Amino acid sequence: MIYVSRQEHFNAAHKLFNPKWSAEKNTEVFGPCANENWHGHNFDLIVTVKGDPDPETGFVVDFKKLSLLIKETVLEPLDHKNLNLDVPFMKGKMASAEILVQEIWQLLKDRLPEITTVGQLYSIKLYETPRNFVEYFGPDPLNK
Amino acid sequence: MIYVSRQEHFNAAHKLFNPKWSAEKNTEVFGPCANENWHGHNFDLIVTVKGDPDPETGFVVDFKKLSLLIKETVLEPLDHKNLNLDVPFMKGKMASAEILVQEIWQLLKDRLPEITTVGQLYSIKLYETPRNFVEYFGPDPLNK
Amino acid sequence: MIYVSRQEHFNAAHKLFNPKWSAEKNTEVFGPCANENWHGHNFDLIVTVKGDPDPETGFVVDFKKLSLLIKETVLEPLDHKNLNLDVPFMKGKMASAEILVQEIWQLLKDRLPEITTVGQLYSIKLYETPRNFVEYFGPDPLNK
Amino acid sequence: MIYVSRQEHFNAAHKLFNPKWSAEKNTEVFGPCANENWHGHNFDLIVTVKGDPDPETGFVVDFKKLSLLIKETVLEPLDHKNLNLDVPFMKGKMASAEILVQEIWQLLKDRLPEITTVGQLYSIKLYETPRNFVEYFGPDPLNK
Amino acid sequence: MIYVSRQEHFNAAHKLFNPKWSAEKNTEVFGPCANENWHGHNFDLIVTVKGDPDPETGFVVDFKKLSLLIKETVLEPLDHKNLNLDVPFMKGKMASAEILVQEIWQLLKDRLPEITTVGQLYSIKLYETPRNFVEYFGPDPLNK
Amino acid sequence: MIYVSRQEHFNAAHKLFNPKWSAEKNTEVFGPCANENWHGHNFDLIVTVKGDPDPETGFVVDFKKLSLLIKETVLEPLDHKNLNLDVPFMKGKMASAEILVQEIWQLLKDRLPEITTVGQLYSIKLYETPRNFVEYFGPDPLNK
Repeated sequence: MIYVSRQEHFNAAHKLFNPKWSAEKNTEVFGPCANENWHGHNFDLIVTVKGDPDPETGFVVDFKKLSLLIKETVLEPLDHKNLNLDVPFMKGKMASAEILVQEIWQLLKDRLPEITTVGQLYSIKLYETPRNFVEYFGPDPLNK
Repeated sequence: MIYVSRQEHFNAAHKLFNPKWSAEKNTEVFGPCANENWHGHNFDLIVTVKGDPDPETGFVVDFKKLSLLIKETVLEPLDHKNLNLDVPFMKGKMASAEILVQEIWQLLKDRLPEITTVGQLYSIKLYETPRNFVEYFGPDPLNK
Repeated sequence: MIYVSRQEHFNAAHKLFNPKWSAEKNTEVFGPCANENWHGHNFDLIVTVKGDPDPETGFVVDFKKLSLLIKETVLEPLDHKNLNLDVPFMKGKMASAEILVQEIWQLLKDRLPEITTVGQLYSIKLYETPRNFVEYFGPDPLNK
Repeated sequence: MIYVSRQEHFNAAHKLFNPKWSAEKNTEVFGPCANENWHGHNFDLIVTVKGDPDPETGFVVDFKKLSLLIKETVLEPLDHKNLNLDVPFMKGKMASAEILVQEIWQLLKDRLPEITTVGQLYSIKLYETPRNFVEYFGPDPLNK
Repeated sequence: MIYVSRQEHFNAAHKLFNPKWSAEKNTEVFGPCANENWHGHNFDLIVTVKGDPDPETGFVVDFKKLSLLIKETVLEPLDHKNLNLDVPFMKGKMASAEILVQEIWQLLKDRLPEITTVGQLYSIKLYETPRNFVEYFGPDPLNK
Repeated sequence: MIYVSRQEHFNAAHKLFNPKWSAEKNTEVFGPCANENWHGHNFDLIVTVKGDPDPETGFVVDFKKLSLLIKETVLEPLDHKNLNLDVPFMKGKMASAEILVQEIWQLLKDRLPEITTVGQLYSIKLYETPRNFVEYFGPDPLNK
């Protein structure tokens, strides 16, 4: 089993706020992340696929195909967007890295078989900043 | 002469648009950077001070004092903010890295003598992303 | 389950030596790391917390609270210190990254419930240099 | 159990092509990676060893010995070489990162006991570029 | 005056050898860099353009246009190629970073006016590895 | 003219204190950097040499020779040492980055002609941490 990873990046605006709470409580809980007029990040994304290499190509998944799939599936709806306002699948959800990383998993999970017959989605790692990041291994982790 | 540099970072939302133009022309010129609902970045900032070290301390400028001055002067108005809406000195200006770096120079130029008697502001380098960055040496560069 | 990580850093001096051995044997085993007058490093520290996000905040743990806890609990006793001389919990122990990372685990383990009700300490990763690093998953790893 | 890692790097040329296929099919499948006259990379390699620290040294494995072993065992046959033409153990194999990482595992697995009595080889991570990388935990992973 | 920089990367094979010398002398002078069957690198390239921002856009040069121009002009002939065999403008020249950076300058110098009316090419920085790099300010440096 | 740079690193302990001052004044001025029992850093060092490439080799200076010269001349006296106690040329001087970078210039200036006939020492850049660094262009800068 080989774990193959591809890193991509996107830039987006967001804010953290819970619509059930007052502005005061949002500021108390989320601090500057609740800034009404948004703030933003350069997000870095690492997608890892697990599998046995295809003997004909030596690949678990072609890095270029994986890059293109991430661009079409994840970067197209997220890059240069407002996570709270512009992204249909984030509507009504907290725009935290923890929630976003689970949505990115869903976007890729179903499309991955289009580009590999031997690899399965293993994890999504999402850097909100170089010092703040999250990782998700799916609802039913392969070997966690 | 020694050139002393300190790196800090901040997160902000912005968009690129010229209010004299139509939405169509803004999108044509700025592409996804004109997204109406903003996008954002993790900005990295490098401030360089030039001078002969003080013989008593061996310092051109104390790194900790320089860090604090940048935090008070630059990060306080910019971090977790919307560059177009929340930042008084950016009002009516293009929120490009080229314009922002000149404003950051002004913020620091006058305050620097508070923390060093031997150093002068030499340059401001601003990374919008790790691959896109600008540098400014002031209106009257010291040795450019 | 989401794995949430925060990176912090500290600077410290140390040396590697076993007090039961002669100076010659220490030099033979530890080489320049046994230099009598110490040497030092910029340590980078990554703390990972595992849990299901709180539905009210979207957080497993607030990055700012995690950063503050690491600063209070880990950086306060270690930053700008001598690991062999100044750090009570390292007295009588080898000042290797392998030993230090286990002590950092202990410091954080008990304090983590103060800042999250849904997250558990998962791992501590400690970079002595960008090319030399260790990771510890606790005495009773959650899913190792 | 502590996981101890050392990073090294090497530069090599290679191309991706399957000798059973026509030039056209190789170009169709591998794109520019099939360029007849080769291309190359700065490979970064992270070797991770798992074990309980030796109480006399505080080490699972001495970073300097691990660095030297990687240089002798892995970098000597690969650095400044052509992976397809110059490397005996890659003859007749696809020169993909997925295949190479498994060969590097074999090179280190048998030699590791020479430098540690408490550590076992845990994983090999190989960066072909900063954005494309693979990881291998062996044919019989220790805790995967 | 603002200095605007864009970073791109490419992968290539090369070797260092002087055809006027014997194989022995080439190996003596260039060591493993003279390996007959080539080796390779992930090259990183930073292109810097100098100018006063256009008041309508706030740009010295549009980062996206600069990225595209570098891709068309520099990456197309160099990426996934053999610098000695596949690149017409390197024929008969030493494939060192010092020579290549001058050729990249020539490629960009004439094409830059297509994408900016206010910026001039200022420098080309070329990383052969993260630790080995060169910079060129042109035959007639703007302010060196 | 091409500017050729090589990066090396070393680990050292130091403290900042002025022997003419009381312990209290040292702590007031230097804060935790005055910790009596030292602290330390992973220093990164970038040495830049300027010149016209030799037509026979394409080199201003051979990267490997430059690396070896830095190791012999700079790293040998500084790596795994205490800058205040173990380094003869730092005796009686403040162990700040500003002072150290000037000493490193002197160490390399006289030895550089041993490895290049076409290059001159241009600058020394010294990172005390990734966020705190200094640069020195010599007492008589070549083109500053």
